Amino acid sequence: MQQAVTQESERITSDVPSDALNRVRESFDRQGLMATLDAKLTEVSPGLVRIRMPYSRSVTQQHGYFHAGATSSIADSAGGYAGFTLFPEGSSVLTVEFKINLVAPAQGEYLEATGKVLRSGRTLTICQLEVHALNGEERTLVALGQQTLICMHGRPDPEA
Amino acid sequence: MQQAVTQESERITSDVPSDALNRVRESFDRQGLMATLDAKLTEVSPGLVRIRMPYSRSVTQQHGYFHAGATSSIADSAGGYAGFTLFPEGSSVLTVEFKINLVAPAQGEYLEATGKVLRSGRTLTICQLEVHALNGEERTLVALGQQTLICMHGRPDPEA
Amino acid sequence: MQQAVTQESERITSDVPSDALNRVRESFDRQGLMATLDAKLTEVSPGLVRIRMPYSRSVTQQHGYFHAGATSSIADSAGGYAGFTLFPEGSSVLTVEFKINLVAPAQGEYLEATGKVLRSGRTLTICQLEVHALNGEERTLVALGQQTLICMHGRPDPEA
Amino acid sequence: MQQAVTQESERITSDVPSDALNRVRESFDRQGLMATLDAKLTEVSPGLVRIRMPYSRSVTQQHGYFHAGATSSIADSAGGYAGFTLFPEGSSVLTVEFKINLVAPAQGEYLEATGKVLRSGRTLTICQLEVHALNGEERTLVALGQQTLICMHGRPDPEA
Repeated sequence: MQQAVTQESERITSDVPSDALNRVRESFDRQGLMATLDAKLTEVSPGLVRIRMPYSRSVTQQHGYFHAGATSSIADSAGGYAGFTLFPEGSSVLTVEFKINLVAPAQGEYLEATGKVLRSGRTLTICQLEVHALNGEERTLVALGQQTLICMHGRPDPEA
Repeated sequence: MQQAVTQESERITSDVPSDALNRVRESFDRQGLMATLDAKLTEVSPGLVRIRMPYSRSVTQQHGYFHAGATSSIADSAGGYAGFTLFPEGSSVLTVEFKINLVAPAQGEYLEATGKVLRSGRTLTICQLEVHALNGEERTLVALGQQTLICMHGRPDPEA
Repeated sequence: MQQAVTQESERITSDVPSDALNRVRESFDRQGLMATLDAKLTEVSPGLVRIRMPYSRSVTQQHGYFHAGATSSIADSAGGYAGFTLFPEGSSVLTVEFKINLVAPAQGEYLEATGKVLRSGRTLTICQLEVHALNGEERTLVALGQQTLICMHGRPDPEA
Repeated sequence: MQQAVTQESERITSDVPSDALNRVRESFDRQGLMATLDAKLTEVSPGLVRIRMPYSRSVTQQHGYFHAGATSSIADSAGGYAGFTLFPEGSSVLTVEFKINLVAPAQGEYLEATGKVLRSGRTLTICQLEVHALNGEERTLVALGQQTLICMHGRPDPEA
């Protein structure tokens, strides 16, 4: 089933069950850091999530590019929620570890992180992380990573 | 030579040359993300830098802990500036890649990241990253990482 | 230009220049570890190299599967030579670092590692590493990694 | 309790319980790859294991140094068995992932890998990996890594 959800002019198209989509949306909204970075969910599909963050002085490193920490933050959340789309109800997700290569200066109007599940097991899930800089029509790869998630069975996110 | 610098009630003790200390301080102050996270330099020594970040809702993940991205951000900056203390004048530092394990829930009044140079070469430098949660007198290890930096010779940070 | 080279019943098809193909072949043949593991080059294309290793007791871990170290060894060489296909003449390749997830028990008649260049710069190159277990027609992903290489300009491999 | 075990002129000193020491020794002896690399256990302590491998042409890369794959193989086993010393009876150990930086050319009479547990949990254990090259009295750091292990409860190693 195809879900279409409009959020602040971004269109989230999803064929995940509406329950899973809601769980991702609600969990994402509880992440204070995503609001601080002005980051938004832009896609939620089974095993794939995208998050976009606009450029501002508040996310920079010393040369005025996006800080590797800001880049990593949206990459980590994108991977975590990509895994979460495949987790059973009543569970939650934690990052065990991730590794990220910063392959080009992160310059642009937006960064978009893509988290994609490569292998999903009962306990551990492995995701690929990619971050692109967006400048008008241009799309440049700026970071690449790999992430290990753990599924906490029977421990749903706390109520807001 | 021992340097003592007071910054917003934090004491930076350092035996790095005052030029290097100033370069670290000025570069850190250009990182918009560090201000956004309310992160402060708390130690600058040759090959070792510490950065502290207070808890607030603006740096959380979905369970109310510090977000792995916030944890990683101060770890990345601590490692980067640890390397930078050993770099020659007129150079700047970029992160090639890092890997971080989140080993315990990041809960506490503060997180403190320590970046420590393990191997410094002309082009590449390897740092160990540690992040502790601070609660009163208690100090709990919450993250552990390893980072590769590149020294950009002849390319100093831009003037503010 | 398309190169076809037959080596011990494996066919290496390649559209890399014959010089680059020869450099990869000769360098691979100097790696004593590859002979010890009975590993063979099975594909050399621009930015992509595959290496295959047969199962034997001499490459196992404690449960009789391929050892993570054997899996990593062919993955590391596959990535290194994938990068090397794109390096200029008179250079050599060294691994700066790699990270690998072992995502399934490595069981089968063969393991095949694929190294693929994701980003190639003057100094640093980033590769994706994949290892599959081969059982008859079946092909199972067993490991996934990411690798950073450095190009040593003006320092060719030593003569054998 | 202090254990002293002599193995092929190497002395294994250990204060792990003799059962745990035996489990490590027996499991190590089932790793065909360690025999192929002529690698030996040289220390087994609670949460710390060392493995030594002599130089020979059979473990080299293209410049005649130890191959990163051989370096990684003993590092991976050292970390895995460091974790295993702390695991309960009737369990076994698998590597989830590791990351390793090759920080200097691996040249010498021997390589010695040290695996040290940094954090041990019920399911996951994090180890630090170090590899030194030994030349007479000289000891040079050549590789540094971080590893995640999983404890397989109720699944002991198979009988030989």
